[in-house]
Amino acid sequence: MSVNKQFILASRPQGMPTAENFTLIETAMPKPAAGQALVRTVYLSVDPYMRGRMNEGKSYVPPYQVGQVITGGTVGVIVESQIVGLQEGDFIAGQWGWQTHALVTAGQARKLDPNQAPISTALGVLGMTGLTAYLGLLDIGQPKEGETVVVSGAAGAVGMIAGQIAKIKGARTVGIAGSDEKAKYLMDELGFDAVINYKKSSDIQAELTEACPAGVDVYFDNVGGVISDSVLKLLNKGARIPVCGQISLYNLEQPDVGPRIQSQLLISSALMKGFIVGDYAPRFPEGLAALAQWLRENKIKYAEHVIEGFENTPKAFLALFSGENLGKQLVKTADM
Amino acid sequence: MSVNKQFILASRPQGMPTAENFTLIETAMPKPAAGQALVRTVYLSVDPYMRGRMNEGKSYVPPYQVGQVITGGTVGVIVESQIVGLQEGDFIAGQWGWQTHALVTAGQARKLDPNQAPISTALGVLGMTGLTAYLGLLDIGQPKEGETVVVSGAAGAVGMIAGQIAKIKGARTVGIAGSDEKAKYLMDELGFDAVINYKKSSDIQAELTEACPAGVDVYFDNVGGVISDSVLKLLNKGARIPVCGQISLYNLEQPDVGPRIQSQLLISSALMKGFIVGDYAPRFPEGLAALAQWLRENKIKYAEHVIEGFENTPKAFLALFSGENLGKQLVKTADM
Repeated sequence: MSVNKQFILASRPQGMPTAENFTLIETAMPKPAAGQALVRTVYLSVDPYMRGRMNEGKSYVPPYQVGQVITGGTVGVIVESQIVGLQEGDFIAGQWGWQTHALVTAGQARKLDPNQAPISTALGVLGMTGLTAYLGLLDIGQPKEGETVVVSGAAGAVGMIAGQIAKIKGARTVGIAGSDEKAKYLMDELGFDAVINYKKSSDIQAELTEACPAGVDVYFDNVGGVISDSVLKLLNKGARIPVCGQISLYNLEQPDVGPRIQSQLLISSALMKGFIVGDYAPRFPEGLAALAQWLRENKIKYAEHVIEGFENTPKAFLALFSGENLGKQLVKTADM
Repeated sequence: MSVNKQFILASRPQGMPTAENFTLIETAMPKPAAGQALVRTVYLSVDPYMRGRMNEGKSYVPPYQVGQVITGGTVGVIVESQIVGLQEGDFIAGQWGWQTHALVTAGQARKLDPNQAPISTALGVLGMTGLTAYLGLLDIGQPKEGETVVVSGAAGAVGMIAGQIAKIKGARTVGIAGSDEKAKYLMDELGFDAVINYKKSSDIQAELTEACPAGVDVYFDNVGGVISDSVLKLLNKGARIPVCGQISLYNLEQPDVGPRIQSQLLISSALMKGFIVGDYAPRFPEGLAALAQWLRENKIKYAEHVIEGFENTPKAFLALFSGENLGKQLVKTADM
């Protein structure tokens, strides 16, 4: 194979992205120089936060540039290496993104042991999304035995891990998700105490009140909007709210308007904090060790929604916003 | 004098309170039993938080009951004492509220030393409002040398102390207040770096942006509403927002609707926390000691807006919402 396939940002989406915002291009296969290795992508990650980076303005992280490859979490196998300690056939995780091949330098690659866990987990439960759940829930949410934790976007890659960690900490865990299939999985497989299917609910406030008879102590928020409005009415004194994502808003073309929430925080002496996983970089080793341990002990499980074929990357990304995925949304771009 | 005058809550206000929501009654002068003392009110405090307690629903603290005396911060002089260690002429602070006299028991009274500071300060800078500023700013806001701190309601009893503590901590301090007279006082007397008169501003966003060229690290919020919307657009990474009050909303009859703020918190990894001073009761001695020290060293100043005459108590309370007061709003009900 002599070409590298890449998806570049063709134009900035207005509202909901479409396939036309991305262009598949072919470039010459790069050749590693000293201190570099050529990696073939095996799995690439598509994540809601990427939508924010497609806008011009300030977001979590610097915006993507039109005409540039979309970067993001990726795992792959070394094809040719000029890096000491890395050889053909080794697996690595990195951030080279939506392309079938890339050059990496030593500092940009984390070597994976496929005997410890499937390499795809480096993009999920043992990667960014697992760490996001672990650090946001434990540092900001701080759930305690017997408290009630509500997780929105509970069937997503972050939400399902956050909910399971809340269970490990002894909390009553209530999920909000978008299908009966997801609700069933979260309850039957992951041990959530209650799950509300917001797409079927005629009165989410009433369902939440019923599911949280002792109020809400922690709200791990992935979605924002009217779902959050409902949860915030149930806050207990001293509640904590990690704001992890606001996926319901990312494609809005109108300003996001709703009840201002400061009064709710004031009445409850509640804490709300936005965060991105990068805020906690010094704690990644601790988080990865804890997640790996829980995984080995079967205390947490994970789900992946794998779409085959590099060409389907934009489709996999767009599917995040229709809520098709149960767990981590991945694209498998090559055999191992 | 043989009667005790009291203001009771006659009816719950709908929207802006009026004089008709309060009734002045006369009751028999109480007689202290063993372990009690009779106190004559000298100063009583009227505070914005009292508005919340006039509603039926959940607020910071339990609601006032119709037909009952409005309780709140009060200082007075002992008329007759059956409490060991408390004698006629001693000054105390307590919570007996809007009445000219009251019985207190030993645990309900804090003895004041009028040689240390004027007794009225026990209701302000050396009392609830000073502690509110100290604890909210330092525990949640945590201003650091060179950071920018914005204070709304900056000419109020809490705001002016919060701003001065921010200055002590080395922060650039920007106030938002409602008159040129207040702005001049905050800058000339209290050393604020900039003050915006929101009532005269045609573009508060532009004025704030100009007053905060390095963005906003701490926003001590007393008012809420559109002023807060503007400040939140300027948050720096890792900003902290103590939510102390939302006076702009207390008398709204419509729901408080505006831009949802979670995205702002997310983009900036910002922390917002509601609080009431009672959350920090174990730290009151520390706070009072620090405030008294700064006062002695002339590092903080305070202003009081004293209205004479017990009969004017409701008027003094209502004036809080038209923003007439510079500093702590007090009613002087008797000579010392």
